[in-house]
Amino acid sequence: MTNLIQYRSLAEKLFADVRELSFDGVGVTRDSYGRGECAAADYLREFAQAEGLEVSADRAANLVFRFPGASPDAPVVWIGSHLDSVPQGGNYDGLAGVVAGLLCMVARQRDGQGGALEIIGFRGEESAWFGKACVGSTCLVGKLAEADLSLPRRGGGATLGESMQSLGADVDAIRAGQRLFDTSRVKAYLELHIEQGPVMVARELPVAVVSGIRGNFRHNQAQCLGDAQHSGVVPRWLRHDAMFGVADLIMRLDEHWRVLLERGTDLVVTTGIVGTDPAEHAVSRIPGTVTFSLEARSRSADTLEAFYQLMRAECSAISRERGVRFEFDRRLLSEPATMDPKVCDILSGICAAHGVAYDVIPSGAGHDAALLANAGVPSGMVFVRNQNGSHNPREAMELDDFMLGAQVLSDALDPLGA
Amino acid sequence: MTNLIQYRSLAEKLFADVRELSFDGVGVTRDSYGRGECAAADYLREFAQAEGLEVSADRAANLVFRFPGASPDAPVVWIGSHLDSVPQGGNYDGLAGVVAGLLCMVARQRDGQGGALEIIGFRGEESAWFGKACVGSTCLVGKLAEADLSLPRRGGGATLGESMQSLGADVDAIRAGQRLFDTSRVKAYLELHIEQGPVMVARELPVAVVSGIRGNFRHNQAQCLGDAQHSGVVPRWLRHDAMFGVADLIMRLDEHWRVLLERGTDLVVTTGIVGTDPAEHAVSRIPGTVTFSLEARSRSADTLEAFYQLMRAECSAISRERGVRFEFDRRLLSEPATMDPKVCDILSGICAAHGVAYDVIPSGAGHDAALLANAGVPSGMVFVRNQNGSHNPREAMELDDFMLGAQVLSDALDPLGA
Repeated sequence: MTNLIQYRSLAEKLFADVRELSFDGVGVTRDSYGRGECAAADYLREFAQAEGLEVSADRAANLVFRFPGASPDAPVVWIGSHLDSVPQGGNYDGLAGVVAGLLCMVARQRDGQGGALEIIGFRGEESAWFGKACVGSTCLVGKLAEADLSLPRRGGGATLGESMQSLGADVDAIRAGQRLFDTSRVKAYLELHIEQGPVMVARELPVAVVSGIRGNFRHNQAQCLGDAQHSGVVPRWLRHDAMFGVADLIMRLDEHWRVLLERGTDLVVTTGIVGTDPAEHAVSRIPGTVTFSLEARSRSADTLEAFYQLMRAECSAISRERGVRFEFDRRLLSEPATMDPKVCDILSGICAAHGVAYDVIPSGAGHDAALLANAGVPSGMVFVRNQNGSHNPREAMELDDFMLGAQVLSDALDPLGA
Repeated sequence: MTNLIQYRSLAEKLFADVRELSFDGVGVTRDSYGRGECAAADYLREFAQAEGLEVSADRAANLVFRFPGASPDAPVVWIGSHLDSVPQGGNYDGLAGVVAGLLCMVARQRDGQGGALEIIGFRGEESAWFGKACVGSTCLVGKLAEADLSLPRRGGGATLGESMQSLGADVDAIRAGQRLFDTSRVKAYLELHIEQGPVMVARELPVAVVSGIRGNFRHNQAQCLGDAQHSGVVPRWLRHDAMFGVADLIMRLDEHWRVLLERGTDLVVTTGIVGTDPAEHAVSRIPGTVTFSLEARSRSADTLEAFYQLMRAECSAISRERGVRFEFDRRLLSEPATMDPKVCDILSGICAAHGVAYDVIPSGAGHDAALLANAGVPSGMVFVRNQNGSHNPREAMELDDFMLGAQVLSDALDPLGA
């Protein structure tokens, strides 16, 4: 077994260098299929090539690291995670998994050991940029909806399809829904990721094994439409106030959520983006249009569907009662996923052998591993303890915890046949 | 008595010309103390000067029209309204009252009649530009708060104080709270305005006499602050969701409002501007900051104060329950106002004498007349029927209704001693 401890300072350097080239003044910004993500990819490519590894792009423009001379058709174990970040995000969300994989690979390369191992750096995992999560892995498994290719970049600019094409992705194959890799070739997919919630810090677990991943439904741009009128002159019963309509919806969903939790259902509900229309809103004007996003996540696909129908029924009720109407853009779905029990057992056994506190816990956030698992690749994830959540510059992973997580991955390679 | 009917085509021309120079592609835009308002003022000044009238600015930069050679100290009746509009607003809100006054004055001027009459074109009535309503009349009565002078213009640019100073206003006197005119000099203030609500159309009243004007309290930029976190990983009981906090507040206020109406209280409540923070919001992020405006209007100052205290108490309850906190900017207050009973009687008598359907109704919207009334000037307002409300380009006043309203003003001048 390889001991990664001598690679601690290398890990530190890789994190520091990529942080520096991604720093935006507040946090890090590595925009999907954009300058920030490419800068991280270019840096890691040059680092790996200097180590003697081969680096190429797959048909979805994800970054693939191979041992020199390795056949791209040989059966392998994949280790990976994503290269991008949210705007003003933290340095470890995504990057930690790619660096962990690279440490495993570089250790074997320097030892002259090689093996049936590839590292994959996914692009486009964060939905903050195009409103669609896990784009790189979704393309790989042939599941990207054609309409997704037309999604505009946050803040304007090229569409997702145009952005991918400019990086050499095979957009025609993606549009046709082709699976871009041979599933049977991948013996297992492993992903290390910082925990994005508060559980592991609270329970003092440096690492954890992930049992499954929440799915979700999303509307990125729903609207409530009412009647914009002078705020002083229309009595309550004649108003069609779009903001009161949205507030009513949120509170009804909050109450359903509360009741469902009491019944033991797994669910979280978020309206991350809500706003009256800056082109016409005013303090003294009843809002005529409110745009809002809506997301629900659950480990159960049935819960997601039931909650969705409940939500639409409440919209109908509010429309009748308040004289507003709701318009929904396309519903985006991510299926919940279960991690492979055998892979989980291997990872748990390694944690136990190291004598560290760990547990098997579910992931509230989505990950590329969910796409691969649902495509039939035996998948497993290792979470690393992290302070202050994620998607913000205050995320704080201890390097010792990270090295422990990377060691767990490294130790799993032999049992998985790498 | 002067019959204004021969001035119908002049009214039509004035409305059309000012509309054309204010047209923004959608509606009209006459920004307070800005280009649009000044363009309207310049046009009306040139028109009036061509008619032989004298035009000057008062110490708050409002436009004053006098008969040639008239003393600025002589006792007079004022007719007026405001020159500005909301962004993408309608042509008649404000302008109708100034044009009505000018028709009365031009008719007397062309007849060689003269009289104790001045027309006043107020600036800065619409709160859409600086977040403060009725600035021109508020300055005149010495009630502008010093802090208001620092209010920024919508969309950036000079502050209110800088904008006023550039038009020659006596900002030092305004800052000192000096009353800028001699109250005892103004025998009465009359204002014609389109109705901004749906009542007169529904009741088929071409004109109405206004009994009183709702006051209001406002917060232009309140905030709810929570904790921005990844949407997938924080369970309901650990969330501090700023948007759920604001939705909760809106629904609690809506319920109080409903109950207060059942008790016969006069009240309307509006959150015209609501939004998560574009710099950090995302579909998959729990909102950490929501900015919102809050306005309540009532004919009763006691109702406004009671509702304000209720609102703050609900914010405290929500803060405890949801782990969020509310921060409020300065509370802006407009006092409710009662129109002068004698002036109302004169206006009502004239309507009755014309044999038209009319009624005495309250104004839900604020008007410059409220400031003058509360400063002790006997004030009266005539509403003119108007389709589709106001603060939007679809407002639609019939010219026949307008001419009737202007005739009512003209007929009131002799009884009021003009």
